Amino acid sequence: MKTALSALGRRTAPPAISWLMKTALAQPKLISLAAGFTDNATLPVEFSRGLLNEILRSPKTGRPALQYGTTAGEEPLRRLTAAHLQKLDGGHDRAHAPERTIITGGSQQFLYMTLEALCDEGDVVLVEDPTYFVFLSILQSRGIRAQGVKLERNGIDVSHLKTVLERLAKSGKIRRLKALYLVTYFQNPTGATTTLAKKRAVLKLLKKFERAAGHPIYLIEDAAYRELAFGGDAALRRPRSAQRADPTAPPTALTLPGAKARLIYAGTYSKPFATGVRVGFGILPEPVYTAVLRIKGNHDFGTASLLQHLLARALASGIYDRQVTKARKNYARKAAVMRRAMAEHFPATVEIWEAGGGLYFWARLPKGISAGVGSKIFQAALKNDVLYVPGELCYAEDSSRRKPTNEMRISFGNASAEDIRAGIARLGAVLRKFI
Amino acid sequence: MKTALSALGRRTAPPAISWLMKTALAQPKLISLAAGFTDNATLPVEFSRGLLNEILRSPKTGRPALQYGTTAGEEPLRRLTAAHLQKLDGGHDRAHAPERTIITGGSQQFLYMTLEALCDEGDVVLVEDPTYFVFLSILQSRGIRAQGVKLERNGIDVSHLKTVLERLAKSGKIRRLKALYLVTYFQNPTGATTTLAKKRAVLKLLKKFERAAGHPIYLIEDAAYRELAFGGDAALRRPRSAQRADPTAPPTALTLPGAKARLIYAGTYSKPFATGVRVGFGILPEPVYTAVLRIKGNHDFGTASLLQHLLARALASGIYDRQVTKARKNYARKAAVMRRAMAEHFPATVEIWEAGGGLYFWARLPKGISAGVGSKIFQAALKNDVLYVPGELCYAEDSSRRKPTNEMRISFGNASAEDIRAGIARLGAVLRKFI
Repeated sequence: MKTALSALGRRTAPPAISWLMKTALAQPKLISLAAGFTDNATLPVEFSRGLLNEILRSPKTGRPALQYGTTAGEEPLRRLTAAHLQKLDGGHDRAHAPERTIITGGSQQFLYMTLEALCDEGDVVLVEDPTYFVFLSILQSRGIRAQGVKLERNGIDVSHLKTVLERLAKSGKIRRLKALYLVTYFQNPTGATTTLAKKRAVLKLLKKFERAAGHPIYLIEDAAYRELAFGGDAALRRPRSAQRADPTAPPTALTLPGAKARLIYAGTYSKPFATGVRVGFGILPEPVYTAVLRIKGNHDFGTASLLQHLLARALASGIYDRQVTKARKNYARKAAVMRRAMAEHFPATVEIWEAGGGLYFWARLPKGISAGVGSKIFQAALKNDVLYVPGELCYAEDSSRRKPTNEMRISFGNASAEDIRAGIARLGAVLRKFI
Repeated sequence: MKTALSALGRRTAPPAISWLMKTALAQPKLISLAAGFTDNATLPVEFSRGLLNEILRSPKTGRPALQYGTTAGEEPLRRLTAAHLQKLDGGHDRAHAPERTIITGGSQQFLYMTLEALCDEGDVVLVEDPTYFVFLSILQSRGIRAQGVKLERNGIDVSHLKTVLERLAKSGKIRRLKALYLVTYFQNPTGATTTLAKKRAVLKLLKKFERAAGHPIYLIEDAAYRELAFGGDAALRRPRSAQRADPTAPPTALTLPGAKARLIYAGTYSKPFATGVRVGFGILPEPVYTAVLRIKGNHDFGTASLLQHLLARALASGIYDRQVTKARKNYARKAAVMRRAMAEHFPATVEIWEAGGGLYFWARLPKGISAGVGSKIFQAALKNDVLYVPGELCYAEDSSRRKPTNEMRISFGNASAEDIRAGIARLGAVLRKFI
């Protein structure tokens, strides 16, 4: 008898790093510099307790937090979200619209629903090369073709994007192109931050090719790591600065002309506040907003009110900002620990893309040396109880180029300073042996 | 220029009752007996505050609640869930497996992902006639054909199911049949509860037709309202008992032979505990379990830990059971208020399906009298500031029969006893005028 599974059900692959996570569990002494988990020690345990006590102190504020809300999300949280983004964007209010904002179960759910609303099987989405691997999983699962565009230290390679678009237009495949996906701040996995000038150029370029496509081509700006900028922390004003991504986080594409019509913005409170409080959000132009809202109605008709009330109160009271400042300082400190350890233990030929925020460093080994899934380096690292994410996992299945295998994503998000030092020392020893 | 939306994005219709909800907001004096919201006054404000204080009292218990968990859900909650179901099923442990349990953002998300895993566009799912309208929305959105099977006071009409299956087998369409969806306890919208004997017969029947289908045909048992049984409350041991569904909630199909291989069970903690704490769960056979788990990885890689820790602690401490008992008594009381008001105000020719639990009464007007969306009765009810759900909204788009329009879903879930009395009086006056 055949399976009853749908094409999607049969096609959906296991998560790229599920075996990494299993490996981590099987080796209790292993130091994982792989996971994108956030820092345990700075989680807002006290803050959350205080806020939840306030909410649940009286039936008046407690009951709405324990009852169904609306599909789009609590109106106060949508208003606070728009205001918060405006503030981060220096007062701009071009496309920061509560009425086109939807609150979701993390930004992941938002990305999923957006792709449901936009893409049929066989459609094309452009991504950075490399990009966020769970986004690639969604594309794989839904039969959407991903095509990579070169990434530079300050964001996507605009001239390569132009070349890719021209080729798609020439072949007619541009009719299947629905969106370009960019992780614009302290990108997962490279730490790269996209300049505002590039965002502007990208929006213009996509608009130029709309006629050939026969429909809008959306820019999806995923700003998940935006608030984890180290900027301002003295520990960062140190040497190697030339290697750093721009530490002053530029405004979002929400501030640009054309944003109202063509920008889909994905944000989250989970990463900066607490990953166990899964609240993300998106801002979309019509008609995508209405489509996503209806899809959300079928997914769960609204994210848990309790979490939304918690975040709304955190934002309104200023506690959210206090927590983010605390988290930033902590990540800046841990990034500094990782930088120093890498300077001490890594061969000088390893190129480090050191982020100005976020959770990751990106390491490039000399050409021809593999740090990939099947490589001697990866095996030796595992044997020495240290785990990283092989960079090749972050590249789309795109037959037009080979996946580089000489890269590593190394996270300082979850490990303690001590584990970062020990893990980088172990990894350095392995690298020195094979380079 | 054309839209860039996908087929799904273009197809997904607005929720069946979104305009009802808008109407409710536009008429502030309106008494809504339409919404499936739960009772505000019994929401566990104090309980939740106490439990969250315990969780967030120390970093040791607080941090895991604010950090990412696993995609399948917290292991303790999955264990507690299996044990809880076993207890409700009288100690059975046939298919109550934590290792095939997944925790989701309400049971709605679980239903959505299950349909993603099973159904391609053009596949068929059998549903009760009438059934839960948001389930119908998912089918509509995903291009899955819904076909109705007659419903009796004690569950699906098994002989009609047999006829439907035979017809599908004859036409060859059975190759596209993936599942039968039943809401087995205090069904939304009718309040009907399916007997264990019927569940057994259904599982057998589906198995018999598997050869013709060429693949498994799954039974999806949605037990969302299961724990809201009034059973044991003296207020219910009253006249009209012959009209009541069986108040002793029978065991689930998890207890039956064949369940391990062919039953997909959907449950929820939201309805019995708090709808603002959106935690549902599912138990599935392989290979559907693995497919749904991977899909969940792409949706959100795990439901918010904070909510899961809250529910786990509620279950382990016994507070969950205390809350459910409280909620049950309250709903039984409000159902009794509604019953008395209907006896007083409704014409005797209106047939009431009075539930032994859940949130809804189902009213059938004499044949030929419409209570549908466009009916005089619905308009007059609105004009008199009382809202119900026209029963026709709960019927699948199935061209093989006409949708009845003489039915109404009337909810006592959210309205106060006072509003129930006033609302039913208003509705009764309208009905007396038109019948």
